[in-house]
Amino acid sequence: MSESSTVAIIGLGLMGGSLARDLAPRGMSILAYDRDEARVRAAMTAGVVSAALDESLAGVGRAETIIIALPVDAAIVALRRLAPYAGDARLITDVGSTKTGIVAAATATGLAPRFVGSHPMAGDHRFGWEASRPGLFRDARVYLCAPRDASSDALTHASDFWHDLGAHPALMPAEEHDRMLAWTSHLPHVLSAALALTLAGAGLDRQSLGPGGRDMTRIAGSSPEMWTAILRENAAEVDAALVAAEREIAAFRGALRHDDVDHAALHARFESARDWFTD
Amino acid sequence: MSESSTVAIIGLGLMGGSLARDLAPRGMSILAYDRDEARVRAAMTAGVVSAALDESLAGVGRAETIIIALPVDAAIVALRRLAPYAGDARLITDVGSTKTGIVAAATATGLAPRFVGSHPMAGDHRFGWEASRPGLFRDARVYLCAPRDASSDALTHASDFWHDLGAHPALMPAEEHDRMLAWTSHLPHVLSAALALTLAGAGLDRQSLGPGGRDMTRIAGSSPEMWTAILRENAAEVDAALVAAEREIAAFRGALRHDDVDHAALHARFESARDWFTD
Repeated sequence: MSESSTVAIIGLGLMGGSLARDLAPRGMSILAYDRDEARVRAAMTAGVVSAALDESLAGVGRAETIIIALPVDAAIVALRRLAPYAGDARLITDVGSTKTGIVAAATATGLAPRFVGSHPMAGDHRFGWEASRPGLFRDARVYLCAPRDASSDALTHASDFWHDLGAHPALMPAEEHDRMLAWTSHLPHVLSAALALTLAGAGLDRQSLGPGGRDMTRIAGSSPEMWTAILRENAAEVDAALVAAEREIAAFRGALRHDDVDHAALHARFESARDWFTD
Repeated sequence: MSESSTVAIIGLGLMGGSLARDLAPRGMSILAYDRDEARVRAAMTAGVVSAALDESLAGVGRAETIIIALPVDAAIVALRRLAPYAGDARLITDVGSTKTGIVAAATATGLAPRFVGSHPMAGDHRFGWEASRPGLFRDARVYLCAPRDASSDALTHASDFWHDLGAHPALMPAEEHDRMLAWTSHLPHVLSAALALTLAGAGLDRQSLGPGGRDMTRIAGSSPEMWTAILRENAAEVDAALVAAEREIAAFRGALRHDDVDHAALHARFESARDWFTD
């Protein structure tokens, strides 16, 4: 990326805000839009954003790179809105947790050659501009999912972009990404929320948990909007992962009831879990 | 605690080892037993333990405080073994995650006046002497569960003991403790192990997880022996908690299938989980 290049960021939440905070000190000029104008003002006051975009997104054409950092459903709406104005942008990307829908939308809007979707495996249960910070993407895996006719220039640009932030980009087909993330990300998220609701139902608060229980319920504090949109997009895959998890929980209950002298079945299950574990 | 007092620690794993590392710098003289002699040697070399106890535990009578830091089933065996030798000890305690069984065993062995069971809500998925460290109990809640006829001297001594380590002791009846911990600790543990086995079954390793999934599977790396013993002791309560969690997971699947325009049911569930959450 040239030092003088301009980046447009749509959405100044945890992801968009953290990107802005990483890019501004690298000499990038940041144009930003957020429906919450106070965020944009805060980012301009902080010297992180140089100019505000209006809701039409008509100004994005001045940017070499356009990043949509919105919940996955809103990201598709924004992509459609900015498509007529994308001008000479070399790369249009996003940071959402599901990729099939937005890759299809990029193709449908004629942006396919310049679109490469991104999914950085970084984040926090805190969200919004207030939670954003520099360095969020350092050492994070970033999945890149591109339409079939993405240009090699866009692919190279996307890969360089994340490398420059200290992240580790890896290309993956959108469908494969969504299938895998149903297990590695969406399933853990639903289990965390289900545990939170189970404890709430038992009248127990989070303060009563030890470090293990606190870790298990951390992501239950995440944005409901963001996660509703993710699960909607990936409902069938997530359902399959939940069915598999239900089976493992039922097997634990079976092992717990099977009262042999040393609870060999229960021990074997914990041992298999530990064997899978790596620090 | 007087500066010259002697503490016997049975078991130099994560908990016993961390206690020894906290107590030795406070001027305590530590006697220790572990069936793995190498651990005791390592602790003596580190200047943390002053003398080794043999397997008979006959030497514990020299200690003012006796701490059993073994898995809950082995702790009961050790309590029975040391009972005839407990001499003038003011306090016999343990650090296990279930308390009904050991409190009953203390009564059965005639140790009730001097026994106060402890459950520090501190720990780690790493275990063994190698994982032990000073400060593990700082700011931790410690549940104290005593037999009906525990002496006020033993209760005061137990409370002072944990206060001195920076922990926050709180008295609770053993049965109430075990019922509550089934939800706040044992349930999260089984869900973490079930998630680990679900991912293992899908051929996915822990490296493929983001920060949320990594947090959700951290305690799946814990000691299988320790956790099998805990669940055996608390099987009925844990089963009830697992049934409640299964119901919440099923409700998420229902909300996911219920395909109204804005997935209001799904959003409401995530919102309830977030409302329960506190940082």
